[in-house]
Amino acid sequence: MVNNNCKELTSKETIARLLEGDNWLILTHNYPDGDTIGSAYALGEGLKQLGKKVQVVCSDVIPNKYEYLTSAVTWDTFKPTHLCAVDVADPRLLGEGLEEYASRIELCIDHHGSNTHYANNLYLKNYAACAMIIYELLQEMGVTITTSIAEALYTGIATDTGCFRYTNTDSLTHQMAADLLKLNIRLHHINRVNFDIKSRSRLDLEQMALASMRYDWDGRCAIMAITKEMIKKAKASENDLEGLASIPRQIEGVWVGITMREVETGSFKVSIRTGPSVDACNIAKRLGGGGHVAAAGCNLEGPLDVAMAKLLNAIRLSVPDVEKEHDDE
Amino acid sequence: MVNNNCKELTSKETIARLLEGDNWLILTHNYPDGDTIGSAYALGEGLKQLGKKVQVVCSDVIPNKYEYLTSAVTWDTFKPTHLCAVDVADPRLLGEGLEEYASRIELCIDHHGSNTHYANNLYLKNYAACAMIIYELLQEMGVTITTSIAEALYTGIATDTGCFRYTNTDSLTHQMAADLLKLNIRLHHINRVNFDIKSRSRLDLEQMALASMRYDWDGRCAIMAITKEMIKKAKASENDLEGLASIPRQIEGVWVGITMREVETGSFKVSIRTGPSVDACNIAKRLGGGGHVAAAGCNLEGPLDVAMAKLLNAIRLSVPDVEKEHDDE
Repeated sequence: MVNNNCKELTSKETIARLLEGDNWLILTHNYPDGDTIGSAYALGEGLKQLGKKVQVVCSDVIPNKYEYLTSAVTWDTFKPTHLCAVDVADPRLLGEGLEEYASRIELCIDHHGSNTHYANNLYLKNYAACAMIIYELLQEMGVTITTSIAEALYTGIATDTGCFRYTNTDSLTHQMAADLLKLNIRLHHINRVNFDIKSRSRLDLEQMALASMRYDWDGRCAIMAITKEMIKKAKASENDLEGLASIPRQIEGVWVGITMREVETGSFKVSIRTGPSVDACNIAKRLGGGGHVAAAGCNLEGPLDVAMAKLLNAIRLSVPDVEKEHDDE
Repeated sequence: MVNNNCKELTSKETIARLLEGDNWLILTHNYPDGDTIGSAYALGEGLKQLGKKVQVVCSDVIPNKYEYLTSAVTWDTFKPTHLCAVDVADPRLLGEGLEEYASRIELCIDHHGSNTHYANNLYLKNYAACAMIIYELLQEMGVTITTSIAEALYTGIATDTGCFRYTNTDSLTHQMAADLLKLNIRLHHINRVNFDIKSRSRLDLEQMALASMRYDWDGRCAIMAITKEMIKKAKASENDLEGLASIPRQIEGVWVGITMREVETGSFKVSIRTGPSVDACNIAKRLGGGGHVAAAGCNLEGPLDVAMAKLLNAIRLSVPDVEKEHDDE
């Protein structure tokens, strides 16, 4: 799917492309998050302000919590002539029903270093959120940043940085938030629905997963299991699982945080997160998996006890001969 | 303890006071948090830069997680001539061992509207964090904001706003963060220790508290219990309880979130948090308590079942005759 003719654009060239088309279809990625939706809505409203016809599409239903964005705008009905994908690193992420567009995307605006250059033209910047790129483009195009556009941009920026908590947060991220907060956005509501509210199912699942937590290696390794039975009991959906895998590594003193998720009965997808002195990829490779130094994964066959024993063995073989006093943070 | 002679100062007058003294003792509040410590350390380092002798004191041990601030500075040993309290709304918050200073505090710098005007001079600004006030003062005094001062200020600002998530966050909060992030601060470490890491005890307690969650009023009311037995079993300290009371109101669809904490065997301290359409104070008043419209509290005698029944009854009497469709967010 890699397009060798993909041309990387400057901001000026990107704006020229955007101004060329009069009927834009803006494509988001599947399992939509705040950044793809925020980027699409902000760009869409900006283009409408410039007299363009715009539609925003997503192969999945946009989650209810983004209702504060979606209810404010009505998109146009028309036959699109130009296609722009936002925050979509790979055409496979367009999802079911949008495959037909994959090979003829005029312009992709993205912040993922892993972008596969599938579009005819690509505007890529290594920002914390795609919405940060859109913000700059809109300002350069002379679009008035309305409250509604500001809410879309803030949503993208805040969600992709874990509300300014993740390591991708930098001075520019905060600078943009400072500017957007001057535009009377519904900050309390946006932060509450994105960072505060949890579903009952999520909370029930979290409780069961926490109850499964086991420690090894003098508390430096924490293992949590999420079984099919727990998911069923909690009536949890895929959304409810988001972020759960980060819990074990959040525990004080834990260097290796493991989450074992039962994907098929008796078969586990293992997520390995590690601190500075342990190589997660090294552990994963011993079990036929792979990944990065701080986050890796593999698949293991159950039952749970057997899989866990294999895992602990691999960890013991992979870790350096460390002093207990060593500070891992 | 209210001092009728307390004079409210302007920033210029505050700076004049600070420059007057040569030997400053900076006082923080007990159960120290990131804002009181960050404010004290930033102000202390700033005054040292201007040639003053400085000591920072706290009646409680400063939690280990702030080691990134405390290990970087050595305070002077001397007989203080001037006393400045930061982020201390009431002299009782100075805590054990510091009472002797309560009546002779030259200057208080604070952001709490509830400040009791106990000091001889008060510089009060309604900012999200006391560290924001300190930041402005240091700049006005011509202090160079070093990386170490920036880390102290960022700690105060980020912790008192829940990492830019709480409703007190505004444009200026983000603007200051944007400026501080240009100074090469250890953002990843600071965010990790303040917003990511949880103790094993905290996680165990959270699991047990979540397991106790009960729902009423078609899921609009959630009640969670924290018993003495749970605290003992989890080996939890007072620090481990921080923020737990906010969990019930975080649940999707919940208008009234209740946390019942057993303080003496069979005796409960009840925290009531509500959404826009329910008055928490109204509920609390029916049970002999009080508070604000969105957060109130009362004390109830057990056993747990009896206390819970009383509480549910008070809620039913207090709530408006609402439609199920009513959107409470």
